[in-house]
Amino acid sequence: MPQEETKLRDGRIVRSENPLNLEMPFSTVDSFITPATSFYVRTHFPIPAIDRDAWWLQVEGEVEKPFSINYKQLTALESVTAPVTLECAGNNRNFLEPKVKGVQWRLGAVGTAEWTGVPLSVLLDRATLKPNANEIILEGADGGMLEEPKSPPGELKFARSIPLEKARRDVLLAYKMNGEDLPPEHGFPVRAIVPGWYAMASIKWLQRIIVTDRPFTGYYQTIDYAFWQRTDYGHWQRGENIAELTPLTEMKVKAEIARPAEGETVPANTSVRVRGAAWACDVEITKVELSTDGGATWNDTKLLGESKPNAWRFWEFNWKTPAQPGKQTLIARATDSLSRTQPVHRDPNRGTYMINHLLPIEVEVR
Amino acid sequence: MPQEETKLRDGRIVRSENPLNLEMPFSTVDSFITPATSFYVRTHFPIPAIDRDAWWLQVEGEVEKPFSINYKQLTALESVTAPVTLECAGNNRNFLEPKVKGVQWRLGAVGTAEWTGVPLSVLLDRATLKPNANEIILEGADGGMLEEPKSPPGELKFARSIPLEKARRDVLLAYKMNGEDLPPEHGFPVRAIVPGWYAMASIKWLQRIIVTDRPFTGYYQTIDYAFWQRTDYGHWQRGENIAELTPLTEMKVKAEIARPAEGETVPANTSVRVRGAAWACDVEITKVELSTDGGATWNDTKLLGESKPNAWRFWEFNWKTPAQPGKQTLIARATDSLSRTQPVHRDPNRGTYMINHLLPIEVEVR
Repeated sequence: MPQEETKLRDGRIVRSENPLNLEMPFSTVDSFITPATSFYVRTHFPIPAIDRDAWWLQVEGEVEKPFSINYKQLTALESVTAPVTLECAGNNRNFLEPKVKGVQWRLGAVGTAEWTGVPLSVLLDRATLKPNANEIILEGADGGMLEEPKSPPGELKFARSIPLEKARRDVLLAYKMNGEDLPPEHGFPVRAIVPGWYAMASIKWLQRIIVTDRPFTGYYQTIDYAFWQRTDYGHWQRGENIAELTPLTEMKVKAEIARPAEGETVPANTSVRVRGAAWACDVEITKVELSTDGGATWNDTKLLGESKPNAWRFWEFNWKTPAQPGKQTLIARATDSLSRTQPVHRDPNRGTYMINHLLPIEVEVR
Repeated sequence: MPQEETKLRDGRIVRSENPLNLEMPFSTVDSFITPATSFYVRTHFPIPAIDRDAWWLQVEGEVEKPFSINYKQLTALESVTAPVTLECAGNNRNFLEPKVKGVQWRLGAVGTAEWTGVPLSVLLDRATLKPNANEIILEGADGGMLEEPKSPPGELKFARSIPLEKARRDVLLAYKMNGEDLPPEHGFPVRAIVPGWYAMASIKWLQRIIVTDRPFTGYYQTIDYAFWQRTDYGHWQRGENIAELTPLTEMKVKAEIARPAEGETVPANTSVRVRGAAWACDVEITKVELSTDGGATWNDTKLLGESKPNAWRFWEFNWKTPAQPGKQTLIARATDSLSRTQPVHRDPNRGTYMINHLLPIEVEVR
């Protein structure tokens, strides 16, 4: 149960109405596939009302044969169906201290759906890329005027780019979510799915695919949805590194605890099932550990089901609760197949994004 | 005479004390070479106090042979001396309506000095670039903590990059200004001079040259000293362009009127010499026109001296002032050898920089 908010819509916490931002209470997660009506919603502008029969997707830029394709033509192409976990780059932001601007997500700006769509590579092949093709810009129909510091004057569309290699590898142009047409708030009629990346890359209400020869520096990958990457260029390693503004891309390895939820009361001196999910980008989750004593000791949990690429994996642990009543602090920690794990402390260079440091959850034993 | 400010230092208008920002009253321009003590000063942090005998310049990154060079070694190399005009990217900002943030420069954040230094290409050759070398980052010793929106946490040095081709072509590592050691506020002991570019690229108090394989996205070429370049990628030219954050580079063609100064009184029914300077990047100024009636009619002015690459050119015009007393509006307009001229209206995508639209100057005929 969410404790800090009361306004719900379809069981989701309303983080804002305009634009619409809905969070799934993470304690309610109980199936590998998240129903569309439970899935978190992140929008930046009003939801475009698109007539599927009038919709065209344009493919242009550094291509030999620019073309447009409509919904009927696109959905007639061979499709792929795959479960993919999407996580908002600002998921867990509400845990940051001091508080920062942005949608105050707790644990639930994440979900997994089965997406059906056409591989982006099919359209790129049809357009025939020029040799200088380097990045693929995906542009949504959602847009408007921004009046943020450093935002461009005039009309802006939500747009993001992906390197050509990634675009060819596994990006989908999805028109079904869990076997049904995309709901309007999830990008109807067609959205991109960029597996393993934070979800700002999975452009909804897709209207244009632009092939470019240079790094795209649009608003949503510089001023917003970017972080300060520190590089020590020094041959002498004197530790004076340089901060470079870098677009967010791959999801960082993370485990979250679904139940017990924060503040939940559990019986003393018994066995309580602790469970949650863990995910990363392009690799397997090999281990999720749980500490029930605030990080002093760690226990291996049991990974459930089978590992699927770029989808979360559920885990559980039978916790022998203490005989003494009192507060207990639970912390989950995931490790991936490249031995990457979650940091203990927050890296301030990440700004208000990529939050995967260890998050203690307090529960009441009674 | 400056009218809007009274605090002067060495005849320059104090725009701010910390950091130190001084403007040359443009009405005082009377020689092709600006004396160092009259030259505008732009700093972002306290002026570093550098001991020349302890100073080392490091060359590193994507090079086969990283090395350091000290002041004695650098100044023993063959040098080049050339006049180069430097203009602050925010020069003329005070003319913008509505008012914007930033140092409120009028006409005088520009000057021309004779710089003596070693071509950057000499040091790059000595370091032997790797095949992937693409850009050259220049880092100054000036730095500190910024607490601006979107600034990186922690220590920051002023740094900027230049494409390899430009770095090899004409960038100097200057240690003399008008034949004398650089004054502290102009970058002692060594600064870069990047001819034709806005002066944020001419890094002062140079301490490091880093060769990189990718576009540098440091604070001073993304969040600051950048603008929104609009590109219409569309094959169908539907006019929905995309804004891309783009570092400021080349100076835009511009003419400024030195005398009469704004608000100056000139005698009626006589011949008044109107004079000023004009500059651009990498091309010749081919024409400066003057309107004495607010833009209704234009007169060719006389270009003085000879054209020198990337240095301003003086111009003059003998104005027959009207017999009737009253206010008159003077406007100068420069054109370069690529037929580029100054826009009538301000492009808001340029933010608070690259201000080269036509600037009316009002004088009083009496």
